[in-house]
Amino acid sequence: MFSKKLVQVNITHVSKKSCREFRNRPDFTKNTYQVERGFYNYLQEHHLKFFEDLLGDGERVLTNLSDLEKYNVDWYLQARGSSAVVLKPKTTQEVSTILEYCNSNKLALCTQGGNTGCSAGGVPVFDEIILSTELMNEILEIDEHGGTTLCQAGVILETLDNALAEKGFMVPLDLGSKGSCHIGGNVATNAGGVRLLRYGNMHGNVLGLEVVKANGEVLDCLKTTRKDNSGLHIKNIFIGSEGTLGVITKVALHCPPKPKSKHVAFLGLQSYDKVLKTLKKARGELGEILSAIEVMDAFTIDWGEEHIKFKSPLDKYPYYLLIETSGSNEEHDALKIISFLESALLGNYVLNGIVAGEPSKIQSIWAIRDRLPEGFKDHGWFGLYDLSLPVTKFYTLVDETRAYLKNQAEAVFGFGHLGDGNIHLNVMARKYDKRLDKDLETFLTKRVLHLRGSMSAEHGLGFLKRKYLPMVNSPGSYQLMTELKRLLDPNRILNPYKLFP
Amino acid sequence: MFSKKLVQVNITHVSKKSCREFRNRPDFTKNTYQVERGFYNYLQEHHLKFFEDLLGDGERVLTNLSDLEKYNVDWYLQARGSSAVVLKPKTTQEVSTILEYCNSNKLALCTQGGNTGCSAGGVPVFDEIILSTELMNEILEIDEHGGTTLCQAGVILETLDNALAEKGFMVPLDLGSKGSCHIGGNVATNAGGVRLLRYGNMHGNVLGLEVVKANGEVLDCLKTTRKDNSGLHIKNIFIGSEGTLGVITKVALHCPPKPKSKHVAFLGLQSYDKVLKTLKKARGELGEILSAIEVMDAFTIDWGEEHIKFKSPLDKYPYYLLIETSGSNEEHDALKIISFLESALLGNYVLNGIVAGEPSKIQSIWAIRDRLPEGFKDHGWFGLYDLSLPVTKFYTLVDETRAYLKNQAEAVFGFGHLGDGNIHLNVMARKYDKRLDKDLETFLTKRVLHLRGSMSAEHGLGFLKRKYLPMVNSPGSYQLMTELKRLLDPNRILNPYKLFP
Repeated sequence: MFSKKLVQVNITHVSKKSCREFRNRPDFTKNTYQVERGFYNYLQEHHLKFFEDLLGDGERVLTNLSDLEKYNVDWYLQARGSSAVVLKPKTTQEVSTILEYCNSNKLALCTQGGNTGCSAGGVPVFDEIILSTELMNEILEIDEHGGTTLCQAGVILETLDNALAEKGFMVPLDLGSKGSCHIGGNVATNAGGVRLLRYGNMHGNVLGLEVVKANGEVLDCLKTTRKDNSGLHIKNIFIGSEGTLGVITKVALHCPPKPKSKHVAFLGLQSYDKVLKTLKKARGELGEILSAIEVMDAFTIDWGEEHIKFKSPLDKYPYYLLIETSGSNEEHDALKIISFLESALLGNYVLNGIVAGEPSKIQSIWAIRDRLPEGFKDHGWFGLYDLSLPVTKFYTLVDETRAYLKNQAEAVFGFGHLGDGNIHLNVMARKYDKRLDKDLETFLTKRVLHLRGSMSAEHGLGFLKRKYLPMVNSPGSYQLMTELKRLLDPNRILNPYKLFP
Repeated sequence: MFSKKLVQVNITHVSKKSCREFRNRPDFTKNTYQVERGFYNYLQEHHLKFFEDLLGDGERVLTNLSDLEKYNVDWYLQARGSSAVVLKPKTTQEVSTILEYCNSNKLALCTQGGNTGCSAGGVPVFDEIILSTELMNEILEIDEHGGTTLCQAGVILETLDNALAEKGFMVPLDLGSKGSCHIGGNVATNAGGVRLLRYGNMHGNVLGLEVVKANGEVLDCLKTTRKDNSGLHIKNIFIGSEGTLGVITKVALHCPPKPKSKHVAFLGLQSYDKVLKTLKKARGELGEILSAIEVMDAFTIDWGEEHIKFKSPLDKYPYYLLIETSGSNEEHDALKIISFLESALLGNYVLNGIVAGEPSKIQSIWAIRDRLPEGFKDHGWFGLYDLSLPVTKFYTLVDETRAYLKNQAEAVFGFGHLGDGNIHLNVMARKYDKRLDKDLETFLTKRVLHLRGSMSAEHGLGFLKRKYLPMVNSPGSYQLMTELKRLLDPNRILNPYKLFP
């Protein structure tokens, strides 16, 4: 039975055209990208037998091709693996047994959370076994006094946030993919999102981790206290390691109080200089209640209105800001944001603006920003660059890119998390052009490194950007990264072809 | 000349009595504690010649016994090394040259910032060379738009905070020792303090580091962007590593806007149960402006009034809370804290309370809390335990300790950062009793581990608590720590006898 399935995988039609031209059904990654399979063993029937003995042969060991498809293809339809099995452990012990077995048998393994990553880091490249954390979804503890939670890695971000909300707390992280991404994946990728500005990154919010090492050893760094300086900070090695150093099985998180009041302002501005001045003004006047400050350019809104069919609540302006406040006092917060907008208009910082306090209106304004990625994957080709830049240079690069590409692109636009200096620069084209892709990459890498920015602000390197690792890190850092990989996963079974080139 | 100085060190009078009985002049650490010198080379004249050639033989290479004393003894007078030389590099290159030389010559080295640590982690134990960061005190960059700063490791916390204040920003860290501690030391010890509750720890706020490895290699992880996921997060390995893995030479920090308004409430409460209820109420009602919530018990205030001669602004109550708010709007903040206090009084959460908004009054209330450590070092003996505990068990342990010790101690009291679950449990005795010290330690370790707390919340392990390393960390974590040490400092020249037992 198993051999047959393996054969099925192998004879699946392989298009020689680039997947980037057929966004609705990507070709296999191994055919599209220059990548060679590592010296891992191939999955055999006796391996599968071992997994079925451990997890049962029902819903926890998937081998049907139709079941496998959604685990093999990433959300953005940028990559497609050919794994023949998905394993769904429920406990740390099961993960440990699986890893020990894979390590002894030199079987490569790709850990997958909600499969919402942007850099194809959570899907197999070849035939890696997929370890899904879907069934590791138990919330183990919410400490109402301490403001902490302890849960398994496969808990969905939104589920955790809802459970915390009942006790007056929140997850200090908010992503467009919150309805499907897993907290373990958020930690493994050091996920950012729109409220990092206010709540900080995963390094600041993760209190403890339980991690299974490549050899199956369970590493207990599961502290739940807010302060702990009783040894080297081991857990932080795994934050942002994209599944290459271990499998995160449990997470302890610091959880701030859930705000009681929320407001959103949507503003139209004349120039990027005014955007910068308004950012500074917002930081000063909205201070502690500022929870997001997103920028979009006119090209972004135009593109969204045409392709996603949303409607901007304002007329046309060169730049737009979406400013969110979250606080504990409705009246004070409303006064602050209205007075901010009034003086921003009066002082000629902004040309126009609206403020919303009702949840439905807030949601409809956020939808403009949140829905932007929707239109990408059905488009001819898109280059999606997730860059960190000094905020003063933040937008210059979009203009430079537009000038560089001239009429080679259909649209070049930028939007992003202004408050964190994280821009999403997007280049749209009707079809994939390999030369253009390469040129653009060379151009951007050079500019970003010159500006001391980052080529991956929040999306990680995953598979698609792994080549950047030695380019954007100093030789010493890069060497230390490879030494850590060697130390923790000497057989390189964990998420191969990801992060490390 | 040099030999003479070395001899002077060796013939200095050595009391055989425990340093803990003579707090004003501690005995040498090597005589007081069970510790053996490692197999390092002894400092020779030709070594000194090398350093003098590098740094000059003036103020940057100290060898006079009188000059050395303050670098050899820690602030709490708990430890005293016998180093014969202090080196004061100004540049990363000089640090690199020193480390490469020490590593090649197997000379042990202790990096020292402001020498304000609580666990004797910053002073030599034997004759380690002291590398002082005093002269590495340049603030290199403040980015007003991005809210970031880049500076050398030896910048004093308060100096950096003042420079940032001029641009409307602050260091997201505040310590009693801010007038002398160095930012590099803060990072190396993952310093916490009273406002961690609001701004998070160093892992959340450090954007980048430059570190010199034991072999002299300069490790450039000096990103200055708020978001960066372009590789393993190498810099985090060095945060909280207490000088055992590398020498931090430059720090890039995220800096939040400086609040424009500050208020402090000082409250008297009936029971610890009321303390917990008030904590929850404060989190909910003061939300985003809450910047500190400190608890003190009656014994603390009594001890302070007797030994430090401060005067509490309230009558006697079993517990006291000091609550600080920091925000962007004076009027809103005042309304919030006054309304909080009114309803806390009306709801019988607190028995009495005052609120201060004027800087001088705020300062005098904070002085009660800040001055507490002052009285320790002139006292007969003190046991100072810096514990993290689940906040519901936070105070129970103080009562348990008092009951356990009965009349063996002069005073047992607890105060600390309630909002972070970090308690400072203090045991005062007229003189040192070795048996009592051991008993107490065994008792506390057992209780804290049972409650899943931490034996060192913010003070680190340093020299005094290094024995805890294998006790409070899981075997796997401990092993990984030793592997990291081996990887980064194979000759173990960096801060020996610290953190690692």
